[in-house]
Amino acid sequence: MIGRSFELPELAERFGLELKGSATAPVFGVATIERAASGQVAFLANPSYRKHLPETRAGVVILREEDAASCPVPCLIARDPYVAFAKIAALFDAVPEPSPGIHASAVVAASARVAASAAVGPLVSIGDRSVVEDGAVIGPGCVIGEDCTVGAGCELIARVTLVTRVRLGRRVRVHPGAVLGAEGFGLAMDAGHWIKVPQLGGVLIGDDCEIGANTTIDRGAIEDTVLEEDVRLDNQIQIGHNVRIGAHTAMAGCVAIAGSTRIGRYCLIGGGAGMVGHIEICDKVLITAMSLVTHSISEPGEYSSGTPIQSSRDWRRNAARFKHLDELARKIATLPQAKD
Amino acid sequence: MIGRSFELPELAERFGLELKGSATAPVFGVATIERAASGQVAFLANPSYRKHLPETRAGVVILREEDAASCPVPCLIARDPYVAFAKIAALFDAVPEPSPGIHASAVVAASARVAASAAVGPLVSIGDRSVVEDGAVIGPGCVIGEDCTVGAGCELIARVTLVTRVRLGRRVRVHPGAVLGAEGFGLAMDAGHWIKVPQLGGVLIGDDCEIGANTTIDRGAIEDTVLEEDVRLDNQIQIGHNVRIGAHTAMAGCVAIAGSTRIGRYCLIGGGAGMVGHIEICDKVLITAMSLVTHSISEPGEYSSGTPIQSSRDWRRNAARFKHLDELARKIATLPQAKD
Amino acid sequence: MIGRSFELPELAERFGLELKGSATAPVFGVATIERAASGQVAFLANPSYRKHLPETRAGVVILREEDAASCPVPCLIARDPYVAFAKIAALFDAVPEPSPGIHASAVVAASARVAASAAVGPLVSIGDRSVVEDGAVIGPGCVIGEDCTVGAGCELIARVTLVTRVRLGRRVRVHPGAVLGAEGFGLAMDAGHWIKVPQLGGVLIGDDCEIGANTTIDRGAIEDTVLEEDVRLDNQIQIGHNVRIGAHTAMAGCVAIAGSTRIGRYCLIGGGAGMVGHIEICDKVLITAMSLVTHSISEPGEYSSGTPIQSSRDWRRNAARFKHLDELARKIATLPQAKD
Repeated sequence: MIGRSFELPELAERFGLELKGSATAPVFGVATIERAASGQVAFLANPSYRKHLPETRAGVVILREEDAASCPVPCLIARDPYVAFAKIAALFDAVPEPSPGIHASAVVAASARVAASAAVGPLVSIGDRSVVEDGAVIGPGCVIGEDCTVGAGCELIARVTLVTRVRLGRRVRVHPGAVLGAEGFGLAMDAGHWIKVPQLGGVLIGDDCEIGANTTIDRGAIEDTVLEEDVRLDNQIQIGHNVRIGAHTAMAGCVAIAGSTRIGRYCLIGGGAGMVGHIEICDKVLITAMSLVTHSISEPGEYSSGTPIQSSRDWRRNAARFKHLDELARKIATLPQAKD
Repeated sequence: MIGRSFELPELAERFGLELKGSATAPVFGVATIERAASGQVAFLANPSYRKHLPETRAGVVILREEDAASCPVPCLIARDPYVAFAKIAALFDAVPEPSPGIHASAVVAASARVAASAAVGPLVSIGDRSVVEDGAVIGPGCVIGEDCTVGAGCELIARVTLVTRVRLGRRVRVHPGAVLGAEGFGLAMDAGHWIKVPQLGGVLIGDDCEIGANTTIDRGAIEDTVLEEDVRLDNQIQIGHNVRIGAHTAMAGCVAIAGSTRIGRYCLIGGGAGMVGHIEICDKVLITAMSLVTHSISEPGEYSSGTPIQSSRDWRRNAARFKHLDELARKIATLPQAKD
Repeated sequence: MIGRSFELPELAERFGLELKGSATAPVFGVATIERAASGQVAFLANPSYRKHLPETRAGVVILREEDAASCPVPCLIARDPYVAFAKIAALFDAVPEPSPGIHASAVVAASARVAASAAVGPLVSIGDRSVVEDGAVIGPGCVIGEDCTVGAGCELIARVTLVTRVRLGRRVRVHPGAVLGAEGFGLAMDAGHWIKVPQLGGVLIGDDCEIGANTTIDRGAIEDTVLEEDVRLDNQIQIGHNVRIGAHTAMAGCVAIAGSTRIGRYCLIGGGAGMVGHIEICDKVLITAMSLVTHSISEPGEYSSGTPIQSSRDWRRNAARFKHLDELARKIATLPQAKD
């Protein structure tokens, strides 16, 4: 952390929050409500942490109106304390500002074009006809193939691969190990051998998207694989060819979406969930962790599959019965019914 | 896309297809049946897209005999339209032909051997005693360790790692981020601490295999981990040490196979499926997405596990009952039975 | 393999094992009990391989006392044959010893510090204020960002990324493609758009940990993400921000742990298992493969979820019934009960 500090009234004004309590010292960092010391900003959003409020020693706590009375230190009142915290914490995020220019060890094709204000780090390779626009940052070890575009203000943190025909909008962030534009899994069985179906499309990523570490997004077979604006993908997600993901949808780690599936806007997909190919999910669908979606969903709402965790001893008994559940149900139908 | 174009009679002859309708203009690319314009090749394989046929404006449609009558434009009759499309689309796949030679930024060990016809891209590292054979292409950022062989005509797209003792057959394609030959997860508990079991084997990949982006294949503990010929692995698959996969088997994304399991030929493993270690799966087994295989399978056929997706409200009620399914079944056995 | 060989009495003495049978020739490698030839060391730990013992042609077999009588060749008696094998096999593991120094193609920031006894391989990048301690090995293609520490004796095999504020203890091994210290998935919805919650913490990895290929460990939001000593993670595991994993816990491939979850010591997590965020798992918990843990666990023991693998035909019938399991249970409650 570096030595930036802020007075509480300054924070209140800057972010439109109400300050309660007598502001004594400036703050210079953030901490959890449980461990914060004076000089640190904490927040209370999740009610399960409310128990720590009476003892907190934070310099200031960002919280909802109704929690202000129990706060022993100054507080900033926010309708959404987590959002306010996100904005204030950003003040303390000492992100290094890379200087524009191309590192001497980078290998840039003659037909590629890199904006003067962009920063290309060490050991980067950029292929034919690719373009890096204003203010974009290409971190160490990235590989950009042919015919790609990295939009203005994008950041490829490190060791990202854009294979071919990948176009990133503005301010897209891609984390290390992500691979965009690899060949989709297009195969046809021909006389006992697999033959490859050429993958002639690309990948189109909207403004403000974020792609997690080691996530893979295949390029389209004929048309493009598309992420609309502000889509947020966590780590180790797999997006098949020709998938389309609506704006503002977010997916937790290890989700897998098979080819040609279309997902709506403002969906939330839990970690490890899967979707088969060629289905459509409407807007505002929430899928819980490790569920498998095998058909289209046309009603907003929350969906699940799987069974609950139990001791293996109990689980084994129940699982054995699951194998014969249909028989059991048929048997029940044959039992004498209650009389009225 | 580049400017290659083909006359329809030329395509018909080249791929042994029957041309129906009066061929007017040449074609210069591919498109979906829904969006194709004149000058583009479309295909109809999946019956659910048949509804788009009467309105298609494609230059030509590849389809089955029985669909020809409904086609408003010229068509090419194929027994398997998807296979025919794959072959025709390949004509339009403008794959850059890398020139042979070793890029100046690559670091190649003195004891390594690279064929004169192979192409080694920028920022590649090749370790001691490794061999790159005729016509192989090693894309930017790949790391090849010690004692590896990259067979003739292989393509390592970019940022692939072969750790040690990895031997690729001919025409193997490996996508970015894949890691072959890492140490398997061999551990033994010794007096409260884990100790490492040395992983002395390698990885052997047959001809014409394909390995997806960010897929990992561990090297064997004593003998090799083996993929026979024409095995196709999608992205983010994990193959444990000493697994053996039979020829022509294909796996969709995110499959995980634990150590020493043996899988037969012509199997199809759905996305996100898993297999425990030390089991045997016979030829021609199909596993549906996200199923877990916990025992050997000796009969060809299709296998599944899991529960169907439902609204979370319904699911929670059913899942709560699953936790007591054995009790329920026992209770049913005590109920009065129907009399004949 | 290189030409090291060992006399059997020498092995017995070195590892405190009893040698039975007349030791004739030295051994120079390891093999499975089924395939070993004279001159090779085999072992028998798993009873299901006992059938191969009478026919083995190994130079020596490491086994338990009770199997000695059935062994046709010399044997070394061990309480835990797998542990003894691990130690003996290490003698034959010809790990290349990289020479200290920084490869000419590596790019090291002026403010970074690399110990004279450390080895930094080709095409490595090391950022500002990072430290590589005594005897550490940084393999080809690794990217180390800002403010990281690689402890004494660590090994980053190849193409590993440490993003920022990652501190590795001593003798930590990290396999290719792993990404430590990427931004956690911290998002808040603000007026219909996602905003980023800054991730100001780091990653702290204890001594003797091992991190598998393509595994990702996010840095903490406020405090650190922590692995205590001797934690062993297999490939393609995802560890969310602020997770804490207790000493000696091991996880098989493709496990995913969501943010802020705390896991105890000596836990074993099966392949593909998942845990939701903000829960606590006590010591000595075993989770079977592909189970989802949705609540805290406070009792040591084995836990499972899911349903057994079946033919899809049977599975579909049972799965259809699962969707109405609650109704079925309610119906049973209405049936006439048995009279005493």
